[in-house]
Amino acid sequence: MITSETLSALDREDPLGPFREQFELPEGVIYLDGNSLGPLPRRTLTRLIDVTREEWGQSLITSWNTHGWLRLPQSIGDKIARIIGAAPGEVVAADSTSVNLFKLLAAACALRPERKVILTEDGNFPTDIYMAEGLVSVLGAGYEVRTVDRENVAASVTDEVAVVMLTHVDYRTGAMLDMTSVTASAHAAGALMLWDLAHSAGAVPVDLNGAHADFAVGCGYKYLNGGPGAPAFLFVAARHQDAAHQPLSGWMGHAAPFDFEQRYRPAEGITRHLAGTPAILALVALEEGVDLYLEADAEDLRRKSILMTECFAALVAQECGDHGLTLASPADAGNRGSQVCFRHDEGYAIIQALIARGVVGDFRTPDILRFGFAPLYLRYQDLWNAVTHLRHVMDKREWDNPDFRIKAAVT
Amino acid sequence: MITSETLSALDREDPLGPFREQFELPEGVIYLDGNSLGPLPRRTLTRLIDVTREEWGQSLITSWNTHGWLRLPQSIGDKIARIIGAAPGEVVAADSTSVNLFKLLAAACALRPERKVILTEDGNFPTDIYMAEGLVSVLGAGYEVRTVDRENVAASVTDEVAVVMLTHVDYRTGAMLDMTSVTASAHAAGALMLWDLAHSAGAVPVDLNGAHADFAVGCGYKYLNGGPGAPAFLFVAARHQDAAHQPLSGWMGHAAPFDFEQRYRPAEGITRHLAGTPAILALVALEEGVDLYLEADAEDLRRKSILMTECFAALVAQECGDHGLTLASPADAGNRGSQVCFRHDEGYAIIQALIARGVVGDFRTPDILRFGFAPLYLRYQDLWNAVTHLRHVMDKREWDNPDFRIKAAVT
Repeated sequence: MITSETLSALDREDPLGPFREQFELPEGVIYLDGNSLGPLPRRTLTRLIDVTREEWGQSLITSWNTHGWLRLPQSIGDKIARIIGAAPGEVVAADSTSVNLFKLLAAACALRPERKVILTEDGNFPTDIYMAEGLVSVLGAGYEVRTVDRENVAASVTDEVAVVMLTHVDYRTGAMLDMTSVTASAHAAGALMLWDLAHSAGAVPVDLNGAHADFAVGCGYKYLNGGPGAPAFLFVAARHQDAAHQPLSGWMGHAAPFDFEQRYRPAEGITRHLAGTPAILALVALEEGVDLYLEADAEDLRRKSILMTECFAALVAQECGDHGLTLASPADAGNRGSQVCFRHDEGYAIIQALIARGVVGDFRTPDILRFGFAPLYLRYQDLWNAVTHLRHVMDKREWDNPDFRIKAAVT
Repeated sequence: MITSETLSALDREDPLGPFREQFELPEGVIYLDGNSLGPLPRRTLTRLIDVTREEWGQSLITSWNTHGWLRLPQSIGDKIARIIGAAPGEVVAADSTSVNLFKLLAAACALRPERKVILTEDGNFPTDIYMAEGLVSVLGAGYEVRTVDRENVAASVTDEVAVVMLTHVDYRTGAMLDMTSVTASAHAAGALMLWDLAHSAGAVPVDLNGAHADFAVGCGYKYLNGGPGAPAFLFVAARHQDAAHQPLSGWMGHAAPFDFEQRYRPAEGITRHLAGTPAILALVALEEGVDLYLEADAEDLRRKSILMTECFAALVAQECGDHGLTLASPADAGNRGSQVCFRHDEGYAIIQALIARGVVGDFRTPDILRFGFAPLYLRYQDLWNAVTHLRHVMDKREWDNPDFRIKAAVT
């Protein structure tokens, strides 16, 4: 039996407790949607004002040199590398996850020219599949995006497969793949492995080099708290960097962008994976989120994440066990990300009723209630309060309200 | 003979004079580099603070709906459309100029599948050529980027050419092409026409639809004052929108992104040219720059721009005529953008010496001194002061200083 006191006691002993003060969190809100948009670190506003007023406003064009703007994609990338088990020089922050997927899928296909299949799973996050489809449309004859059930991925890595593209933590259920064994099975069949870390970076331990991953992309605006539409990142293992070429070959990926040469000549290393001019305001916001995250101890974060998801799942069972909420996430915390999801036919309306009570989770079609647990700013007590609200919503059928069935553009 | 008083008199009568107050401009600086990075509009800082603190900080994920974040690419695009002679629904603000070039070159090639050449001019801005090279690398067999001298472009539009890609205002010399006649010559040969408006949007009158242009891209951080690395924009003429498909087919270009369908289904209209999640902080900064620009009268802007470039060229001839500065821009203001450029073997050092005096222009390899004139915030008196500094630099050979020969990363 978990009680409010159980959770208060955990808060008192929580080494991460002080981090909550570093965030702007609205009064009266329990924010379980940091997996969709992380909240605002207080320091980010300070940095944005400084960069806007001083660096842009006063130093103007010279800031590209004097304030290091030109190297922000690489310097922030080096910081993100520490979070995902990569080395300095293997990561840049740039563009969107979608655009970065295109770059790296193209680079992977070019490294395996005799193979024409991009293999992924049914139910992968849609933009991953869409970008692969777009790449296939330009690569042309013989190229194909092949989707198979998750359990059949390993067996489907035939000698036609150039690259296996998978999302490490499933966006709906939170189910987490074993990065090492899946990568090994791709390699055993001669394919390259590309990981999407959208729901992993800042949420669960990731060791790209430990798993011998080839390529990865990830998101800046979820658990890294980089702001709405923050720049994404991409990883290319050092061993591929001399041979890997991506087709969004813009001037920032050129060996000498300010020599204005008339032919493209790729920069050494990870820099060739940049395209256009870096988005400075967005990058500095991301950097603050990343810096703050790096101040926390990685083991403390994982321990709290696991304990929070376990407590939440147990509390829902304890308090709402007879309301038809079916656990959609793996029961074992070791096999899931920092989220817990349930299925319910009235999932959309239930989420709306919870939001009306200040408990912000989100809904994923067709029937998934998704709750994310960011150990950097959530309190254990929040779990008790969130489940108390959920119990009220379910006990009183608050979801059974036409207002809660109006679908917004973003759900 | 132009005197300081001539210019003061012009300032007193300048209907655009009050706009200068809307910008943060550093004390003691004459900023003739708005063609590289536009200065900070004061309102932009206010907006950034509000969006960061209130929309992101307080409203969090709900801002995608409640604060219109999801439609910012289109709503800002509609505003930019007014500046470039496009209709609502023909422009979106997103990604970088480089990435948008890739999208539209690919769309153009797909519309002319029997043609395999992307035609452009020698000396086009490098990223334009680089992105075309990248596209050709994935399109594969038979595709080619062909560069010819500017004067030979029209004659080179053979039946092999799918798309002609040109920059309207040359980034080095400011030479401006006749959009209508060049577009007509591309069309006469069955090719599509893509314009890069990087040095045009906000600098000179542009009438894309009047010229029957097919595609265009442009930059947010130059004359639109959108901030360092601001989102770029792209234009697709309404008549092509049903048939035009671009391969960076991310979820934001999907017909129903939040239905999470497993196959890509392009949105109607311009929206299909979006890829990943919109960069909100960067977009709202851009919107402020665009809004401010739209408050000015377009004819006043062009009139002042022409007069400023004419006065500056005449003043340099008058004050520095014997110092070997050769006009690199067209002599007729009607054939150039809002910039005046000179050639000099010591161009780099001269620019550094001017910067040391607070006159910020820039250098473009191999020998171009580039001065941009943004009528929204420059005073006529600034021209007198800038040329006075230039005369001192030249008379006293201030450029002949080893410190001014050290090349910075961004030049």
